[in-house]
Amino acid sequence: METSLFLLIVEIIGTIAFAISGIRLAAAKQFDWFGAYVVGLVTAIGGGTLRDLLLGVPPFWMGNGWYVSVTALSLLFVIVFRRQLVRLDSTFFIFDTIGLALFVVIGMQKTLAFNYPMWVAIIMGTLTGAFGGVIRDILINEVPLIFRKEVYGTACIAGGLVYWLSHTAGFEEELQQIACATTVIATRLLSVKYDWRIPIIESTPGKNKGHE
Amino acid sequence: METSLFLLIVEIIGTIAFAISGIRLAAAKQFDWFGAYVVGLVTAIGGGTLRDLLLGVPPFWMGNGWYVSVTALSLLFVIVFRRQLVRLDSTFFIFDTIGLALFVVIGMQKTLAFNYPMWVAIIMGTLTGAFGGVIRDILINEVPLIFRKEVYGTACIAGGLVYWLSHTAGFEEELQQIACATTVIATRLLSVKYDWRIPIIESTPGKNKGHE
Amino acid sequence: METSLFLLIVEIIGTIAFAISGIRLAAAKQFDWFGAYVVGLVTAIGGGTLRDLLLGVPPFWMGNGWYVSVTALSLLFVIVFRRQLVRLDSTFFIFDTIGLALFVVIGMQKTLAFNYPMWVAIIMGTLTGAFGGVIRDILINEVPLIFRKEVYGTACIAGGLVYWLSHTAGFEEELQQIACATTVIATRLLSVKYDWRIPIIESTPGKNKGHE
Repeated sequence: METSLFLLIVEIIGTIAFAISGIRLAAAKQFDWFGAYVVGLVTAIGGGTLRDLLLGVPPFWMGNGWYVSVTALSLLFVIVFRRQLVRLDSTFFIFDTIGLALFVVIGMQKTLAFNYPMWVAIIMGTLTGAFGGVIRDILINEVPLIFRKEVYGTACIAGGLVYWLSHTAGFEEELQQIACATTVIATRLLSVKYDWRIPIIESTPGKNKGHE
Repeated sequence: METSLFLLIVEIIGTIAFAISGIRLAAAKQFDWFGAYVVGLVTAIGGGTLRDLLLGVPPFWMGNGWYVSVTALSLLFVIVFRRQLVRLDSTFFIFDTIGLALFVVIGMQKTLAFNYPMWVAIIMGTLTGAFGGVIRDILINEVPLIFRKEVYGTACIAGGLVYWLSHTAGFEEELQQIACATTVIATRLLSVKYDWRIPIIESTPGKNKGHE
Repeated sequence: METSLFLLIVEIIGTIAFAISGIRLAAAKQFDWFGAYVVGLVTAIGGGTLRDLLLGVPPFWMGNGWYVSVTALSLLFVIVFRRQLVRLDSTFFIFDTIGLALFVVIGMQKTLAFNYPMWVAIIMGTLTGAFGGVIRDILINEVPLIFRKEVYGTACIAGGLVYWLSHTAGFEEELQQIACATTVIATRLLSVKYDWRIPIIESTPGKNKGHE
């Protein structure tokens, strides 16, 4: 199988996993089909859209109809198989994690192609992977999950740092990307398995008067 | 009356209706005048602004001061006539619906002028019409209404599909736009009259573990 | 001391004050380090980022790593000195107010450099100063504070109007900026000292049916 076909399949799988996560959370909030579709779409393409706006390029999905179609199929899938979905939770988790890794790599690659420095690429990779979920949580009016639970955004940053390291070490570009994706996947899988958490700042008593 | 003058009047009426909807919801949340003005402005221009950012063109309101002024007048109007406003609810509903239809047409027209395909235009038309209300609801910290109640976004999509159909059928451009606007208005009016609802996905039990 | 060095120091102080306000509010919501960092960064750079997107220029922080670094140092500072922070509340308040004034001036200056009219510059100055806090409040799922309490956004507008007046009066550019910054600072300090409030619209009874 060609690399480009392999990557396309991974991207579609990741998009479906992201869209379904948004659609299911919207369904749990009693959203109608329209609302669920919008939340699913934003979860799948929101991070990459923000990245493209910041980079000053046309949003990636406007040149290719399959993101919008795949989200519609995801909605149909959830509507039809909503009772069976719980049994697929671990499959979705794997798909979501693989998608996350690919989105980080795509985001970094695209940013580096515009000659931005590595730290900008890491931010853009993290945005691409994790920000769709943040907009999803804003739309369903919840505190974004990745700010309080699970090692999600941090897995993206870890992958970005490994990209940087292997870049500095002079590895081939493809190897840099594989190292990055592997790190994202490994960090996320291990963090769930061993219940890793990012530390919480102990809340300070008293009222914060600044900038309110 | 010239067409362009007619359209300008409709756009001003729609802008006022959108701004007033934002200002009233902000007032119900005890926002002060500044907050109510911002929410009113965002409701009126937020959808078109997002559309313009995605299209990569300067936001439409930055070249023309009347959107900002008309919103200020709307705020003044709500402050002075707040007790009388309830009696005008059905008038506002009509104005809002006419504005919605025009905004969908404007959004689609502008997108097609950049040679984007029809499906992008339908998304942009829906964004232009319906997304200001979504940002409004985010700012007042409520779950966006159009994701759960009323046929609002779906009316935009229906109008967009009719635009597409009449375009494919080879109708004149003006006729396409009239067909689109009529569909949006009819869908919205009928949906309210007969209490149509978009179906809700029955929520799946169990915890969604993917992408959290 | 050179003006440009002075301005850089003021900008860093303002960025730290904004970032710390975001980090502390995130900490109060039990966000982890990643979440607190993101909220701090968005509070510090969110307003200027939106301004740059609307102006169609690359976001300012993408060309200069110190915003991202200073936010990381702010996070470290809050983690280490969280118990002592309450005692510094009035210091942060001053820093935040000075930062606010500078951000308004920067936002207006940048907008005028693109030959936009004054009213656009005032909106952009207000966005630069006040919108980071709005995105912060959206991310922590609270109703934005500046829409209901404190004279914050209105202080930005007051500064903007003074900029306009002194511009129309033919003052030198540097004097216009000092007049603007002084107005922002004075309005904010006086409003806190004398507990000034922007009036609230008395809520209208009845249901708003338009645009819902």
